[in-house]
Amino acid sequence: MNTDTIFELDARLAQDTLFVHDLALGRVLLMNDRRYPWIILVPRLPGVVELTDLDGEQWERLWDESLHLCRVLKQAYPQGKLNIGALGNVVSQLHLHHVMRYEGDPAWPGPVWGHSEAEPYGVAEGREKVKQFSLLLV
Amino acid sequence: MNTDTIFELDARLAQDTLFVHDLALGRVLLMNDRRYPWIILVPRLPGVVELTDLDGEQWERLWDESLHLCRVLKQAYPQGKLNIGALGNVVSQLHLHHVMRYEGDPAWPGPVWGHSEAEPYGVAEGREKVKQFSLLLV
Repeated sequence: MNTDTIFELDARLAQDTLFVHDLALGRVLLMNDRRYPWIILVPRLPGVVELTDLDGEQWERLWDESLHLCRVLKQAYPQGKLNIGALGNVVSQLHLHHVMRYEGDPAWPGPVWGHSEAEPYGVAEGREKVKQFSLLLV
Repeated sequence: MNTDTIFELDARLAQDTLFVHDLALGRVLLMNDRRYPWIILVPRLPGVVELTDLDGEQWERLWDESLHLCRVLKQAYPQGKLNIGALGNVVSQLHLHHVMRYEGDPAWPGPVWGHSEAEPYGVAEGREKVKQFSLLLV
């Protein structure tokens, strides 16, 4: 898949996340919020805002990669409730959230988006979490 | 696709929505909230809670149908920002939201889920909206 041509990760996404892995189409990022297992998938395509901006092949590939992430999260956190979402009301670059939720987590049962300030991982803790997901993804 | 075997729509979903159309896999519902163009897709499969409960063929079909809904919404509301989400923290039956958002809508830029009480359509208005979407779907 022809990606990366002039792809640049949105500055806000770059600031709020830790890099995990590049799949064929999408960049996998860990949301830097230790309260939730939270993976973001960003298609490495320039100028894509709406899901409908994708062509049929890109759409299919994106959801293939999303399925992979969903399975990884469900395998790692079998007791959680998976939430996925693509909003883009604040950050317009198309990005797909995958968040594992638990009864009693800070935003439960509401959505995590816009709920409250993130609690960043400690440096070593973040590195460990990134490593954990990298290993699960390949 | 073998659907409907013992599928029953969740009572809360049934109460909060208007029936629009059955696609090959999914039931298309209009959220009964006149503040947002809001379409819900529910795979007519019994006992499905998580996206990872779907097999590969069902997953692909669900997202094919979702793409159709995304395009219909974007065509009908070209100025809006599409939001999609699958949460299931309150209603566990797997269902996929497609909501067209606008700057200045009641929940903007936050998510609509759990934001505030719905404003139901008037009877004629709801019937008209259902008809509009039915025609766009076929």
